[in-house]
Amino acid sequence: MRLVLVGAGNLATHLGLALVRSGHEVVQVYSRTENSARTLAVRLNCPWTTDLQDVVCAGMYLIAVKDTALQDLASTLVHRYSDALFVHTAGSMPLQALSDAGARHCGVFYPMQTFSRARSVDFSTVPVFVEASSPDDEAILDTLARSVSKRVYRLSSEERRYLHLGAVFVCNFTNHCYARAARLLEKHGLPFDVMLPLIDETASKVHELTPAQAQTGPAVRYDTNVIGKHLELLADDVPVAELYRMMSEDIHRLAEKEQG
Amino acid sequence: MRLVLVGAGNLATHLGLALVRSGHEVVQVYSRTENSARTLAVRLNCPWTTDLQDVVCAGMYLIAVKDTALQDLASTLVHRYSDALFVHTAGSMPLQALSDAGARHCGVFYPMQTFSRARSVDFSTVPVFVEASSPDDEAILDTLARSVSKRVYRLSSEERRYLHLGAVFVCNFTNHCYARAARLLEKHGLPFDVMLPLIDETASKVHELTPAQAQTGPAVRYDTNVIGKHLELLADDVPVAELYRMMSEDIHRLAEKEQG
Repeated sequence: MRLVLVGAGNLATHLGLALVRSGHEVVQVYSRTENSARTLAVRLNCPWTTDLQDVVCAGMYLIAVKDTALQDLASTLVHRYSDALFVHTAGSMPLQALSDAGARHCGVFYPMQTFSRARSVDFSTVPVFVEASSPDDEAILDTLARSVSKRVYRLSSEERRYLHLGAVFVCNFTNHCYARAARLLEKHGLPFDVMLPLIDETASKVHELTPAQAQTGPAVRYDTNVIGKHLELLADDVPVAELYRMMSEDIHRLAEKEQG
Repeated sequence: MRLVLVGAGNLATHLGLALVRSGHEVVQVYSRTENSARTLAVRLNCPWTTDLQDVVCAGMYLIAVKDTALQDLASTLVHRYSDALFVHTAGSMPLQALSDAGARHCGVFYPMQTFSRARSVDFSTVPVFVEASSPDDEAILDTLARSVSKRVYRLSSEERRYLHLGAVFVCNFTNHCYARAARLLEKHGLPFDVMLPLIDETASKVHELTPAQAQTGPAVRYDTNVIGKHLELLADDVPVAELYRMMSEDIHRLAEKEQG
């Protein structure tokens, strides 16, 4: 099936590369941003455009753009290519966003991973969650997903909302904990890389133990002595101190619930 | 050197095992809790006691107990064995806690890792931070540390406070992000293990990129649309919604600082 990739950000880039490597035919890249469109098109060895009116006819439009841009883009394309399968890649958007845009055939292809431009990803290990407006369309997406990943699941829009929220916790919030530690260490002349064994072990532990079982440190036993000393160290950075306090309280709250 | 292990919790257990495997002579385990003392002593193949008065004479006392218990325990032992080297393992306590307890020879041996009973740890990869009251004592601790770990650093009490605070962020707070996601998914019938590739990649990324460079998701670009939808999903759990809001705001604040 001929695919058009709508969007050229991190997700579109990693997905496009995985599709081409698996032998799919990406016939065009569209992006508002010329530089992004060209860069990705060169990597995928296909034409590109920044003009929505120049988007070519294809069997599937894979739309990987900001949530706020999705519906307008989809409406315009659906209007011209009403028989095609329209697919978005957003964890937080329902399938209905595409049917509301007028698509008769639509689906979701959500690869749950954190994609950065500067880092390659083994797409075969990325869990992909698919959903579609009909069993036939779902079968098409399922086949597409299985061609790039070993971990393919069917999931409703309703359930995907919670999955995406969970992903924000384990990825974005976790990374922010790393970021706050990095700034703190930097400020005091300590190298961040001494943290890597602890970061790795914290991630590895939850392959074996539940996160509740894996928890250690001052907050879980609510050691007011240590917590108080840490809050003093953060006294010059009120929002971070407040974050520390809330995190510690919530760790303790959860520990009490799990025990009770 | 003959060592007495004071404490039989998770840290004492993993440290004791690493020491014995490296050929050190642990001559006794002390713990207030009979079951813990016996369990660890059996694993280390040495005697144990729950009575501080029965602690035997040794060259080094390695104290791995709660911060609040440290000084009292140390005082009692120092009083009887004033020539020995007294060493604590707490990231959050200064060396001075031991000199205040009367120790003439004292030091810190802080293995920065998260230790759980149910999970074995490759101690050779654990960063160990040492400090002592004299160069001779520091050399002893440095040698001991190098016999169990490939990553040994000398670090002052002052600097160790920030290291320990950073460890709480990258380990305990990170694990809590996993725990909150786990509860959320469980509540909606989704398996936590679909999160593991994302957890692993989030940890792996910061080996290559700084955490600030690695950040993705709705908070860094402050996507009020997605953030608003997530807060709605958390409406029945006010403290978690509040945590979500604070995290997102702090991610955005840090991103603006890094760019500015």
